[in-house]
Amino acid sequence: MTNAQITLIQIDNYGPWTVTPEPRREVDLQTLQSRLYADLSQLIGNREGYVFFTRFDNMVAVTNGLSLDDHALVQESVGNRYPVTVSLSVATGTNPVQALHDATELLQDAGSAQDHSRREILDGRTIDEEFRTDDDVQIAHFDVNDMTGNYTDEVNAFDSFIHIEQGYAELMRYMREAHDSLSFFVGGDNVIAVCPNLTESDYEDAIRHVKESVEVDLKVGVGQGRVPQDAGMDAKHALETCRATGSKIEFE
Amino acid sequence: MTNAQITLIQIDNYGPWTVTPEPRREVDLQTLQSRLYADLSQLIGNREGYVFFTRFDNMVAVTNGLSLDDHALVQESVGNRYPVTVSLSVATGTNPVQALHDATELLQDAGSAQDHSRREILDGRTIDEEFRTDDDVQIAHFDVNDMTGNYTDEVNAFDSFIHIEQGYAELMRYMREAHDSLSFFVGGDNVIAVCPNLTESDYEDAIRHVKESVEVDLKVGVGQGRVPQDAGMDAKHALETCRATGSKIEFE
Amino acid sequence: MTNAQITLIQIDNYGPWTVTPEPRREVDLQTLQSRLYADLSQLIGNREGYVFFTRFDNMVAVTNGLSLDDHALVQESVGNRYPVTVSLSVATGTNPVQALHDATELLQDAGSAQDHSRREILDGRTIDEEFRTDDDVQIAHFDVNDMTGNYTDEVNAFDSFIHIEQGYAELMRYMREAHDSLSFFVGGDNVIAVCPNLTESDYEDAIRHVKESVEVDLKVGVGQGRVPQDAGMDAKHALETCRATGSKIEFE
Amino acid sequence: MTNAQITLIQIDNYGPWTVTPEPRREVDLQTLQSRLYADLSQLIGNREGYVFFTRFDNMVAVTNGLSLDDHALVQESVGNRYPVTVSLSVATGTNPVQALHDATELLQDAGSAQDHSRREILDGRTIDEEFRTDDDVQIAHFDVNDMTGNYTDEVNAFDSFIHIEQGYAELMRYMREAHDSLSFFVGGDNVIAVCPNLTESDYEDAIRHVKESVEVDLKVGVGQGRVPQDAGMDAKHALETCRATGSKIEFE
Repeated sequence: MTNAQITLIQIDNYGPWTVTPEPRREVDLQTLQSRLYADLSQLIGNREGYVFFTRFDNMVAVTNGLSLDDHALVQESVGNRYPVTVSLSVATGTNPVQALHDATELLQDAGSAQDHSRREILDGRTIDEEFRTDDDVQIAHFDVNDMTGNYTDEVNAFDSFIHIEQGYAELMRYMREAHDSLSFFVGGDNVIAVCPNLTESDYEDAIRHVKESVEVDLKVGVGQGRVPQDAGMDAKHALETCRATGSKIEFE
Repeated sequence: MTNAQITLIQIDNYGPWTVTPEPRREVDLQTLQSRLYADLSQLIGNREGYVFFTRFDNMVAVTNGLSLDDHALVQESVGNRYPVTVSLSVATGTNPVQALHDATELLQDAGSAQDHSRREILDGRTIDEEFRTDDDVQIAHFDVNDMTGNYTDEVNAFDSFIHIEQGYAELMRYMREAHDSLSFFVGGDNVIAVCPNLTESDYEDAIRHVKESVEVDLKVGVGQGRVPQDAGMDAKHALETCRATGSKIEFE
Repeated sequence: MTNAQITLIQIDNYGPWTVTPEPRREVDLQTLQSRLYADLSQLIGNREGYVFFTRFDNMVAVTNGLSLDDHALVQESVGNRYPVTVSLSVATGTNPVQALHDATELLQDAGSAQDHSRREILDGRTIDEEFRTDDDVQIAHFDVNDMTGNYTDEVNAFDSFIHIEQGYAELMRYMREAHDSLSFFVGGDNVIAVCPNLTESDYEDAIRHVKESVEVDLKVGVGQGRVPQDAGMDAKHALETCRATGSKIEFE
Repeated sequence: MTNAQITLIQIDNYGPWTVTPEPRREVDLQTLQSRLYADLSQLIGNREGYVFFTRFDNMVAVTNGLSLDDHALVQESVGNRYPVTVSLSVATGTNPVQALHDATELLQDAGSAQDHSRREILDGRTIDEEFRTDDDVQIAHFDVNDMTGNYTDEVNAFDSFIHIEQGYAELMRYMREAHDSLSFFVGGDNVIAVCPNLTESDYEDAIRHVKESVEVDLKVGVGQGRVPQDAGMDAKHALETCRATGSKIEFE
């Protein structure tokens, strides 16, 4: 059984801030957002977690292994170095979608994302050390079959991107609805999903669905571990096995 | 008539690099990608251009006002500070999709994105100073109507994100096919599009299409200028007018 | 008794790299150096260590609490994100100067800083967990008395800086020779020193010496702890007590 | 005749901010300071200026070629991305020390560096375009003779650093007093000085003085140009000539 610990990271009152007193230059917003994400990647990733940029103003992290104190330090470090602050809420469960749902509710109960007085919320609970197991996190790493040969080197850059985007949008929607998984585009032709205990036939089903609905041909490597970093690295190795053997699904 | 100058930015041989000699830690790849994008935002944005993260390994920029020498300096600066290099190709035209198509071809002709020996290509042509006009760039800034009230504060974070993502995927596809425009998600509930000379009824058509196909309710501000920074800032001001007046489409 | 764990961080073959094939633009070198330092600050600081920029191409860290595996991860993360690599050597001892001396020798034995084939050395030993105590690290935080009132707001910016610089150069030299301590300028009018078990009269002696030789008037807060972060934060609080009470030396 | 344009950059109310409501973690302050410097390097350097970290809370830039509008954009960009703001003052003159003196006075007249209500000052004047010449900036790039062979690979890292530091402190003081120049440590064993129209014998004098007073053996390359980037790059090439020929002073 998996037991994902999911953290929702929300920039406090970000929308209003971007247009107060008048719209801020897009170049600075883009720089701010992507650097904040990079910093969160380092802060959480170097504690063996994973964070996804999602919407940039709302980010989702898998944080098995991080305590609430670790979360507090991440929050403090952002507050010390950025003109904006972040709120963090944490929830856990066998179903990552449900865990994110619970984390979201905690934050919504504390106030609106655009409430000027709701700042630096830190709420929720982490998994007690005694209940942590070596199978708590299942991560699946998808990519598009022969993306470079079929698209990047053949089709114009935007149509390649539309192709990836359609595949990603369909995968993310289907994995959420049919398999209780959270899927995130992570650049290139890569999607990383945080999953409950899925089986090979579940992944077959998802790959078949995406192929049939938007004609994007995926393969996937799957890893499982105590912390996201281990599960994710196993998934990458499994995907390398797919590349080497031509198989579509590999569990490490 | 618009005359967009579009630059395709491609990390050289990136896919192979990420798994050589074995898969690199995802936290470092995410940090590298988002910081490279942040740096390109600054390098290009502070010369009044716009750059979009797109796939991160392939980025698209609107570079009216930047010379080939400026491009060379951007390329050199990346090469001096990153473990990877970038290739740049530039093309121009009244139709941004066609311009990106031409830029892509230049790069594809120079070799594969995964060819180890194809490095730091700099090719293409910029608009001659004498032919530049104050209407060369049209930029549209879309967002979702009452995203925070209807979604961020009400629905779980992933379902909010799916909602935005479906809207974005449909808008990007439709704007490309029906209106020769390049649309990019820029975080939050915002999409920025680089457009040819579109009219109010073109935007009405796009907004209606997205509403009908995926039930996402958009509004848009449109700006036009000599350089992307001016057109983009006008678009932001126009979008503020939408917010103030409740209108769906505003030209600055 | 203190027992400092000192890490020497050296960019491999950096001098030659900066001028190959021809001198690289200073703006990029400055950006590279200061961002590498910022990243090391985060990588080491978020594991409760301290790192000082020193010469930028050679940096010194106090790493009590970091294992060799932690060092390996820091090294890997730099290698994944920069065009240069770093070598790390670690040594321990009651005397921080001796520990740095030992760490330096390890690296020198492995080859020259400008040897192209000497890359990513990781050598030395950390303090065994069983021998770690709550007094292992003593950190002293110095600043200049009424710097803003007497200098920043009164004298031109460069003469203020010369004043600080002379005080710092003298403090660093004297603390090394008379008190076996490593002192580092950390910005503003602040110097942080890593010390063996110094007493109040040792600090009195150092402050008197700097006052007499270069007429710079210092005060100091001192903290002690198991890890640099705790000792350093205690030192800051002690310095706040100096500010509040007008005293020159405070131990937390 | 040189005509340097010097900008003083001061973080507003920084000292109080670092200890309010209580001392902030040093790791975050170090990260903030070095990244702010890196960003200013890019913002100013990519407009062909040079900026030096100096004290980090007060930085000095050579900004020939940057208008007041450029300065305003730098200020805005910092304000959009950091929890602190900066004030900028600009002055010009044949004597860089005098120019910095004038710039400092402008800022001091506007209020204290620790005055909470003095924020984002932008004052001073730049060189009118018609008065700019190809000799406006003279830059000298010093380094220590055979630093690696004699020190880095032979002496412990801190004693090497003390050696550089003493040389730097003496050079900076002497160049300011005897030759009206502003000298800055830029990492490794490198010092860059902004000078009025100095001659070969002036540099001989400075090198001799440093050798005699602190036994540090320097060489120097000198460049002159319309903007700092050109003068500085010429100085680097001249220093390469020193390395190749064994000479101590080269003008490009």
